[in-house]
Amino acid sequence: MSGSTFGELFRVSTFGESHGAGLGCIIDGCPAGIDVDEEFLQHEMARRRPGAKGAAVTERKESDCAEILSGVFEGKTTGTPIAVLVRNSNQHSSDYDNIKNLFRPGHADFSYYKKYGIRDYRGGGRASGRETCARVAAGAFAKMFLRTQGIEIFAYTKEAAGIKGSKVDFSEIEKNLMRAADKDAAILMQKKVEEFKMSKNSCGGIVECVARGVPAGLGEPVFDKLDAVLSHAVMSIGAVKGIEFGSGFECADSTGLENNDFMESGFEFSTNNAGGILGGISRGDDIIFRAAIKPVPSIYLSQKTVDMNGNACDILIEGRHDVCLCPRIVPVVEAMTAIVLADMTLKNRCSRV
Amino acid sequence: MSGSTFGELFRVSTFGESHGAGLGCIIDGCPAGIDVDEEFLQHEMARRRPGAKGAAVTERKESDCAEILSGVFEGKTTGTPIAVLVRNSNQHSSDYDNIKNLFRPGHADFSYYKKYGIRDYRGGGRASGRETCARVAAGAFAKMFLRTQGIEIFAYTKEAAGIKGSKVDFSEIEKNLMRAADKDAAILMQKKVEEFKMSKNSCGGIVECVARGVPAGLGEPVFDKLDAVLSHAVMSIGAVKGIEFGSGFECADSTGLENNDFMESGFEFSTNNAGGILGGISRGDDIIFRAAIKPVPSIYLSQKTVDMNGNACDILIEGRHDVCLCPRIVPVVEAMTAIVLADMTLKNRCSRV
Amino acid sequence: MSGSTFGELFRVSTFGESHGAGLGCIIDGCPAGIDVDEEFLQHEMARRRPGAKGAAVTERKESDCAEILSGVFEGKTTGTPIAVLVRNSNQHSSDYDNIKNLFRPGHADFSYYKKYGIRDYRGGGRASGRETCARVAAGAFAKMFLRTQGIEIFAYTKEAAGIKGSKVDFSEIEKNLMRAADKDAAILMQKKVEEFKMSKNSCGGIVECVARGVPAGLGEPVFDKLDAVLSHAVMSIGAVKGIEFGSGFECADSTGLENNDFMESGFEFSTNNAGGILGGISRGDDIIFRAAIKPVPSIYLSQKTVDMNGNACDILIEGRHDVCLCPRIVPVVEAMTAIVLADMTLKNRCSRV
Amino acid sequence: MSGSTFGELFRVSTFGESHGAGLGCIIDGCPAGIDVDEEFLQHEMARRRPGAKGAAVTERKESDCAEILSGVFEGKTTGTPIAVLVRNSNQHSSDYDNIKNLFRPGHADFSYYKKYGIRDYRGGGRASGRETCARVAAGAFAKMFLRTQGIEIFAYTKEAAGIKGSKVDFSEIEKNLMRAADKDAAILMQKKVEEFKMSKNSCGGIVECVARGVPAGLGEPVFDKLDAVLSHAVMSIGAVKGIEFGSGFECADSTGLENNDFMESGFEFSTNNAGGILGGISRGDDIIFRAAIKPVPSIYLSQKTVDMNGNACDILIEGRHDVCLCPRIVPVVEAMTAIVLADMTLKNRCSRV
Repeated sequence: MSGSTFGELFRVSTFGESHGAGLGCIIDGCPAGIDVDEEFLQHEMARRRPGAKGAAVTERKESDCAEILSGVFEGKTTGTPIAVLVRNSNQHSSDYDNIKNLFRPGHADFSYYKKYGIRDYRGGGRASGRETCARVAAGAFAKMFLRTQGIEIFAYTKEAAGIKGSKVDFSEIEKNLMRAADKDAAILMQKKVEEFKMSKNSCGGIVECVARGVPAGLGEPVFDKLDAVLSHAVMSIGAVKGIEFGSGFECADSTGLENNDFMESGFEFSTNNAGGILGGISRGDDIIFRAAIKPVPSIYLSQKTVDMNGNACDILIEGRHDVCLCPRIVPVVEAMTAIVLADMTLKNRCSRV
Repeated sequence: MSGSTFGELFRVSTFGESHGAGLGCIIDGCPAGIDVDEEFLQHEMARRRPGAKGAAVTERKESDCAEILSGVFEGKTTGTPIAVLVRNSNQHSSDYDNIKNLFRPGHADFSYYKKYGIRDYRGGGRASGRETCARVAAGAFAKMFLRTQGIEIFAYTKEAAGIKGSKVDFSEIEKNLMRAADKDAAILMQKKVEEFKMSKNSCGGIVECVARGVPAGLGEPVFDKLDAVLSHAVMSIGAVKGIEFGSGFECADSTGLENNDFMESGFEFSTNNAGGILGGISRGDDIIFRAAIKPVPSIYLSQKTVDMNGNACDILIEGRHDVCLCPRIVPVVEAMTAIVLADMTLKNRCSRV
Repeated sequence: MSGSTFGELFRVSTFGESHGAGLGCIIDGCPAGIDVDEEFLQHEMARRRPGAKGAAVTERKESDCAEILSGVFEGKTTGTPIAVLVRNSNQHSSDYDNIKNLFRPGHADFSYYKKYGIRDYRGGGRASGRETCARVAAGAFAKMFLRTQGIEIFAYTKEAAGIKGSKVDFSEIEKNLMRAADKDAAILMQKKVEEFKMSKNSCGGIVECVARGVPAGLGEPVFDKLDAVLSHAVMSIGAVKGIEFGSGFECADSTGLENNDFMESGFEFSTNNAGGILGGISRGDDIIFRAAIKPVPSIYLSQKTVDMNGNACDILIEGRHDVCLCPRIVPVVEAMTAIVLADMTLKNRCSRV
Repeated sequence: MSGSTFGELFRVSTFGESHGAGLGCIIDGCPAGIDVDEEFLQHEMARRRPGAKGAAVTERKESDCAEILSGVFEGKTTGTPIAVLVRNSNQHSSDYDNIKNLFRPGHADFSYYKKYGIRDYRGGGRASGRETCARVAAGAFAKMFLRTQGIEIFAYTKEAAGIKGSKVDFSEIEKNLMRAADKDAAILMQKKVEEFKMSKNSCGGIVECVARGVPAGLGEPVFDKLDAVLSHAVMSIGAVKGIEFGSGFECADSTGLENNDFMESGFEFSTNNAGGILGGISRGDDIIFRAAIKPVPSIYLSQKTVDMNGNACDILIEGRHDVCLCPRIVPVVEAMTAIVLADMTLKNRCSRV
């Protein structure tokens, strides 16, 4: 109810602030009997972690080691809740002392303060991007389950700093620092991001996600359509400001004849303007969507804001901040997509007598 | 769980198929003591109903009279579940006999069949647009509650058939058949829609929605951010293929300096690129989002498809169908927005001790 | 959230007041492909209905015809929400005019008023026993599903008016007006109930319930143990003041050696002190529990109470009221048990990979 | 859904096995601004912990130190999820090696195995009584919140080993090892429990609970009646086999005239046969219920059982086990009651416009 739980049968509850003792999650409803791949879990954590060499992301050194506290016995899930804990370390809380009475532009400082009357100002507290490491831990277990169902998920930077990728080669994604699926575009993106870094500004982008191997039948009409729940999941990631499936916003300028996907013998679809979903239910081909990522709000230029008394003032943000969030949001989008598909896979077991 | 319930404290459950006995909803958790405005309820139902004169929407005559079955006593809500029933009438089920073994392009026929192994083929069954009349009934009660909180919602056709509106005048919306907030654009839209009708094709568009009077503090971190839940709600409406808040997909090409909204003395925001939401929590100004509406999939041109045995064939759809869904989706977007804001308003009563 | 929904995968939402337009329910998540037995549905409704000849229950004539509004097509469930409506008729609302400002002893009048600030005083409104007809309608569908799983449920009056049944013969239950499983005890119960009726008083009793054919594995640790959820379900029936499983309260005076059920070769249990549940999970034998039913609070003797201003006064209740609720609670206990078992059966499909 | 979450607005999710890395909980929805009393938290943990001197409970030494991982800042709750971790230590997993292929009588070994196909046999795994330490941690926060609302909860051993308490003096509860509210009965209980210990057997009992200061209006009709949800909560504690409110099972032998509680001027009730609840909603006086506690199933006598192949064999259980669970279930009953009342208090904020 209070917003830190996602999913119903494969249900993830998270906790943790940027500068508290740690972050983590409980995954309740993960089916028993899954082989737990701990190395994969740590690898997923590493993908989200800041510190990868490159211009787009910050250079903080966080180990982000995920400790499994429960729910696994002799290498297999037992059906009981899986808790994962990631300790915080390498925090520079004092970086935030000088802004504890100011509302940073583009951050949740003001809205949290209005809601709760109190806020943990250190590093954004609960509203920090660091919160997503709990999502990635949970997503790793969702992926382990989906593997047993033949479902794979690939997210990648489709656009960053105004540079659009056109080719889609999944094998390129982890080979470049932008996590683009188009290696030539990746080079241009990287260059542009460096420029934004030099000018103390930041930039936005678009992350695209493809889920492959999804059988027909996932999604629950009418409110829990697969695209509706994926939208909920992905829009809940900080910095995501829009989502579209298949032809997306382009369909607004399209016609029925152009936008309809026709079926061919063997129940194949000729095109995929629908993003693999009809009436909110998967139809058996790829699920495809894109998410709009806003520019990092923390920039190194002076900005106008107010303090807690409403007085106008200037703010200069310190600390280490990403220039473009796309590469680090990629694993988070995958994680949320995996959680949704795991949940929907379980729900679909109940659709027939 | 099974997808026909939305909201948690202000909780709406709907039922009903296009050609069954009727449709309706139960609203559980509507606070006691609200003055029930029955005339307003019927007016909202009429806004969604097909048959309004105009090119964009079908000319079916449906009375869509909403009967309140419970939860209201002596003109006020009592705090117990409010059930609303809308009987079906004027159905032409036989229109569908010739396509009962075919999967219509762009419709949910195939995915429902794969999910349940059985489908009510008459008029799309549960996947019919007619399902939304239960949402509008529930939304009318949500609006009655929000009125007591000073919150108003305005949706309108921002773009249709390739014509974009630029001005936003809420008082124009109900004066033109396109439900555009820009009266000049409305005339052009209408003309274009007529052309699509003549060519037996259909067109898409964009619906924009503004919620006014929303206090700071609505939305529940981290998964139930206000924008995430609004996305869930709006993306669950059939034909919606994308959603974006504030600057939306444009923020992908923007910079931190451009996209950040700065605060001014008195806690006012200089701009609204965020769509009124920071960190998933409303900040006290207008909530603004846009939804992409796909072209009506039912067109009067021959299309390729397959039958239930997977054999290729042509399909020619009969019956009465809209050319552009925007005008009729407008009240549905408002209804879903109202349900979310009602739910979030109640949840926010629990954020402090 | 607001209390009118029960179950998560097999999910029932009810509505309706005693003297409003009608009562009913939405069943969301009923699997597709179940043969709908309408005759059975009406038969279940009739079992709950007042008017059966006999001393224990009132002689109101209510037809309680259940109309299926959705979710069934060509005789089978489609997987979409099943809505059922029961119209109210034969109401004597004016019976309640003289007590509209008084709080009836043993009824919810006072607590509803304190909670909502408004109450529908006619016949108890939402707190009326009539509310249970929506539960029975939903339970009928749950039973239709459970039939396909080989699960049967038998509730019966174990004790009434101080008379205890000892034999348990399921075939006797519907043959006597007390719905006792012991035909000899039934005769004595009936006689005692007549005496209470003559003295204008009322009496309590105990309803026992046996679920047969339940496989091992139903129930979800740790909070949604099968016995915990059954307790929730059964204690939510008005007038039920206690519940116990297997040896129940007697186990308080027992020892580990006496109370443990031992397993024998073939995984059979020698005894059933546990009521068929270990650690909250069914173990494959009969589920057995008992519910304590309080005496009908509406009696024809003058009682002390207060009016809405807190002034002491006497109250004399009119209208038609049962003397002993057991026979009419029997089908309601069965219905709630069926809903729980249907829900748990679906959940258990997700316990393994 | 999968059973490890309880509550909706004040929502508790737990994890952990007896012999894994640790146990704990996430409390989501705890209102912001509560003064966190860490000493009280540790004191509550200590009350549940085994090792207190006395015959009834085991002598394991567990420190059960609760670490708060999130949700608290500068001594106050922030409205974000509060995670609490209790590390396991002092485990004797090898104690269980000799019974890993046997199903212990009265334990969940068999039912877990049937449900999941895999089980953590060390100390009962998830089904261990140790699981309740996460409940007590969550309950401590619920009590901190309830304190701000003037609500207090007192549970105590009403009966143990066949000895019934009659006096109720809350100040005595923590002064005797049986946690009885009747000091004279406590001495007799203690003596009897020693006898059971000597005979290698165990005994059951009854725990009574009183909630004081509960305002009228808590509870949500019709399924989430206050007594129904309390029953769910308390019956979910391992070893609880029955629950009754107010006059409870005695009402079965009572009459309407005897069992009705009459109101007196000033809206006071003359008696409390209802246990403080009418129509599922609190009426403003004490909430009173009793729970039946089964004898500890782990006894030191040889018992009959089967192994995983279904072969009959004898089992002799080793390790350290309680003789009577009542004293240690007392704080758990309080914790679950506190969680329910916290949740219902928040829900009730939404009952009126």
